[in-house]
Amino acid sequence: MTTTMRADADLGTLAELGQQLRVDAVRVAAAAGSGHPTSAMSAADLMAVLLVRYLRYDVGDPGESHNDHLVFSKGHASPLMYAMLRAAGAIDERELLGYRRLGSRLEGHPTPRLPWVEVATGSLGQGLPVGVGLALAGARLDRLPYRVWVLCGDSELAEGSIWEAVEHAAGNGLDNLTVVVDVNRLGQRGPTRHGWDLDAYARRFGAFGWHTITVDGHDVAAVDRAYAEATAEHGRPSVVLARTRKGRGVPDVEDREGKHGKPLPDADGAVRHLGGVRDLSVQVTLPDRGGQPHRFPSGPLELPRYDVGDQVATRTAYGQALAALGVARGQVVVLDGEVADSTRTAWFAEKFPDRFFECYIAEQQMVAAAVGMQIRGWIPYAATFAAFWSRAYDFVRMAAVSRADLRLCGSHAGVAIGPDGPSQMGLEDLAAFRAVHGSTVLYPCDANQTVQLVAAMADRAGVSYLRTSRGDTPVIYPPGEQFSVGGNRALHATADDQLTIVAAGVTVHEALTAADRLRFPARVIDAYSIKPIDAATLRAAARDTGHLITVEDHWPEGGLGDAVLDVFADGSTPPPLLRKLAVHGMPASATPEQQLHAAGIDADAIVAAAQAMIRTGDTP
Amino acid sequence: MTTTMRADADLGTLAELGQQLRVDAVRVAAAAGSGHPTSAMSAADLMAVLLVRYLRYDVGDPGESHNDHLVFSKGHASPLMYAMLRAAGAIDERELLGYRRLGSRLEGHPTPRLPWVEVATGSLGQGLPVGVGLALAGARLDRLPYRVWVLCGDSELAEGSIWEAVEHAAGNGLDNLTVVVDVNRLGQRGPTRHGWDLDAYARRFGAFGWHTITVDGHDVAAVDRAYAEATAEHGRPSVVLARTRKGRGVPDVEDREGKHGKPLPDADGAVRHLGGVRDLSVQVTLPDRGGQPHRFPSGPLELPRYDVGDQVATRTAYGQALAALGVARGQVVVLDGEVADSTRTAWFAEKFPDRFFECYIAEQQMVAAAVGMQIRGWIPYAATFAAFWSRAYDFVRMAAVSRADLRLCGSHAGVAIGPDGPSQMGLEDLAAFRAVHGSTVLYPCDANQTVQLVAAMADRAGVSYLRTSRGDTPVIYPPGEQFSVGGNRALHATADDQLTIVAAGVTVHEALTAADRLRFPARVIDAYSIKPIDAATLRAAARDTGHLITVEDHWPEGGLGDAVLDVFADGSTPPPLLRKLAVHGMPASATPEQQLHAAGIDADAIVAAAQAMIRTGDTP
Repeated sequence: MTTTMRADADLGTLAELGQQLRVDAVRVAAAAGSGHPTSAMSAADLMAVLLVRYLRYDVGDPGESHNDHLVFSKGHASPLMYAMLRAAGAIDERELLGYRRLGSRLEGHPTPRLPWVEVATGSLGQGLPVGVGLALAGARLDRLPYRVWVLCGDSELAEGSIWEAVEHAAGNGLDNLTVVVDVNRLGQRGPTRHGWDLDAYARRFGAFGWHTITVDGHDVAAVDRAYAEATAEHGRPSVVLARTRKGRGVPDVEDREGKHGKPLPDADGAVRHLGGVRDLSVQVTLPDRGGQPHRFPSGPLELPRYDVGDQVATRTAYGQALAALGVARGQVVVLDGEVADSTRTAWFAEKFPDRFFECYIAEQQMVAAAVGMQIRGWIPYAATFAAFWSRAYDFVRMAAVSRADLRLCGSHAGVAIGPDGPSQMGLEDLAAFRAVHGSTVLYPCDANQTVQLVAAMADRAGVSYLRTSRGDTPVIYPPGEQFSVGGNRALHATADDQLTIVAAGVTVHEALTAADRLRFPARVIDAYSIKPIDAATLRAAARDTGHLITVEDHWPEGGLGDAVLDVFADGSTPPPLLRKLAVHGMPASATPEQQLHAAGIDADAIVAAAQAMIRTGDTP
Repeated sequence: MTTTMRADADLGTLAELGQQLRVDAVRVAAAAGSGHPTSAMSAADLMAVLLVRYLRYDVGDPGESHNDHLVFSKGHASPLMYAMLRAAGAIDERELLGYRRLGSRLEGHPTPRLPWVEVATGSLGQGLPVGVGLALAGARLDRLPYRVWVLCGDSELAEGSIWEAVEHAAGNGLDNLTVVVDVNRLGQRGPTRHGWDLDAYARRFGAFGWHTITVDGHDVAAVDRAYAEATAEHGRPSVVLARTRKGRGVPDVEDREGKHGKPLPDADGAVRHLGGVRDLSVQVTLPDRGGQPHRFPSGPLELPRYDVGDQVATRTAYGQALAALGVARGQVVVLDGEVADSTRTAWFAEKFPDRFFECYIAEQQMVAAAVGMQIRGWIPYAATFAAFWSRAYDFVRMAAVSRADLRLCGSHAGVAIGPDGPSQMGLEDLAAFRAVHGSTVLYPCDANQTVQLVAAMADRAGVSYLRTSRGDTPVIYPPGEQFSVGGNRALHATADDQLTIVAAGVTVHEALTAADRLRFPARVIDAYSIKPIDAATLRAAARDTGHLITVEDHWPEGGLGDAVLDVFADGSTPPPLLRKLAVHGMPASATPEQQLHAAGIDADAIVAAAQAMIRTGDTP
């Protein structure tokens, strides 16, 4: 018989629910033959109290604007999350027991395949930073009183990204954020650094400006008091540091090493020991639906226009396009990693301070904040140097698993930046972003093209990446010319072309110079959309000219050249002769022109390669 | 006339040296037309006191074992470092003023191109973590009393990697580490979050267990006392938090926004204002050369051997090979990110606890610690899940700029891990590691092959990456068979082969099954060395068979398929018809077999692709 619990449930019933969640965690892992039941059992009481007494959530409408948000930063505790969803009536027993099976929505680690999951977790140290993004959205964008709850493990507090988030949350006074840390003292391979020293964690959170509460995580009355205290706090985020026992309730595994990430040795016995299968049902308290999400005004889109022949850096066009987009789309928000003067997001920041988020030099938190904001329907654009996106690569990878729509801009791409040297040069960004599931990779060569692509990104699903250049380049396309994602531009195309030069960004200008210098007709393709790439135009060029040269300001691996080669890797298209020009040696300091020359990606190098390929040996 | 300063120099002369360092920073940026003089000027007094009174360093022998180490975590303050090197007699005036020019060793951000630089910096938040690695090497490996000094900026304290390092240093009681933070309150685009609130930083460092000292960074007497206090501290690292003024000494720029990263507007005037060019020379105190670096015993190499037909996971072979290598090479050290039971480094940890470093879940610190250790000649191997290397990608990128020799292992590669889901699957690691300058990328398919490659990595320069698999795979090569980096294995090779299947890791076994099932002769190439790849064998296969299929447990971008295509991108080799099989859809939970099937990279998929390519339509 089902007993339905409401917020007024007594403490004994809360404890019973904790046992039910444990039992279900044990059952699902046993049915799957894998999973992390012991990591779920330690946090069961913590989540039982939350689900019944504190969470404000419409299970029937998970996208409801006023809902609280619950992020399992310790994603491996998914059996606990799914047990909660059964208790809340979201999923049934049959689905619960299909955990980790082919086709199930109940994946080993939570993903948004399941409607009640907003962000994929499982790479530790990411749930809290995303929670900070959600809390920022609540406080500064939606301006709604929803609360963000994050369940963290103790092991993941070793990740630097956690401390970026801790700093960011305190710096923004996010009192709508409550973090619950399940301090069960055991990581995957053994004890954590601090064990059950709750004060060690409290000192750290406290030093960053958080309200800290320590509690016995299996005492439901104490947990209840802790949550009451946390939710009453004003002006700063709260952390509930809960001492718990991994595998709580089953002596075979409780607080024992070597029991991480595997079903219990005797699941049936464990279920009996825990008092058997229960059927408590929770009527989760609905949120107060008063007030609508705040909306910023939207207006007409008037993109900047540049005259052909002017010298304009694509990063400048990016910044000016963002500012224009800010007028047109009230949902657009911008984040920057303390380099707004360089990435040119500063113009947006000046014009729309309420929609600009200074993330300081914390690229992981920047991506996570953007992921959190897009959950709530905001359209985030985030920028830093192309090189420094490598700092947040795991966050970008996980954003794709989260089905997040992000727009990232990497400025200062390639050796073309000049004297600052290799630490500041994005030379692997195209490879890294191409290898993100469902990503879009754009690399414009002129200002008018840039602004069109910046606008197109707003409505693009998945992770979109735009690469911009530091230095000025000539405007070659007239203002207003349309550029769509997945297209390219064939320049100098004639039926007599003997060779095609495929370039993007700064190398387009080198390619055009080279084509002018060659004694035979050569086509230049501006492959501004590197992923998806315009296969039809490239196939036509291969058919027409038989010889392709790709040239890119990037390492030879994974960038434009590989993207072009991939077009001919369908098993049926006869591939052309192709040569890749890219950056092979480790650059040092030099002027931009010297850098392009030294790397062998300037007009001279293209001319030499083209001559060698066509074997004319004859240039002006 | 040159005045030579020694450790007994008086305070007035120390202050004069500070002015000289400022003047030289102003001069080099003016000569280069770029650079970060104001960020150098704030820290000039801090470094003057250090250079004269505290650093123990043989400028003539920068690799000397007993030398202290100085890391500029704020690498953009390179003008200050180079000014120090001039004062110390390492470089002359002419070289100093060639800063940032083509061919100069004085790059925009320091790199080991200059013999006195041990690690490249310029991506903020990395110098301190590497310093922690050096300090660990001093305390636990070399067992020498050298001290590690790190100069940090205040902006970079926002990076999570800093707090990984802070936690790691305190957890290891590294009292041989002193961090100097140049709190000049101004980042690149404006004020930092905490401005001159030194106590905000002191609370944070203190909460993590550091000894903290706050000081006026322009009062050389106070700085001297702070360093004395720091070096006298036992059992914990010290941080000197110094209040400074960016651009100190020149009113045009001092403590003013908008003056980051550019030469002074009136360099000549500034030099005059600072009292003109000086020629103070510093006789840096030599280290006490007592005691030799500790060495662990080395013995014969007896790699594990596996019988053909046995089922052994390559991660298991990795762990057993590491343990064997530990016996053979006393310089081998192992680091792990709290997953030693999964990566199988646990065997090494048990056998050689003094040479094993538990980094907890802090992948950035793990790479940085390895970089620090290899500076001192140790041979680090570091391991975590393949997916989680994405967390440390910027550190790997910078390790290449540092010319570091690292050996990284990524376990649990690809969809083949099964039910844990995409957050745990390394599916972009091949792309990411291929796009690291000078990298080696290996992906063995059997246990005997794995152990040979693990051994070969020890002597490999640059960043080497080995990808291992979670599940058992059959041993197909006899024990003792040699596998070299850059090679591959052509299996089933006959003159009649109509098609070649290029595989690596788990897909080798699928390819062999597929070849057996095809009605026409097909070659299988085990491309275990993905970078460098064996171009000759692949070109021969293309010539012999005309048709290639690549199959990999990885996204389609940047992995094995792209590496094979690249072989034919020299502009002269006629490329074969080629089809890439890879993981296209976002995986969910399923068994390993179901995963390979769903991704279209199992034997069935290979057979289908091969049939379509050869158009026989006829299989058993």
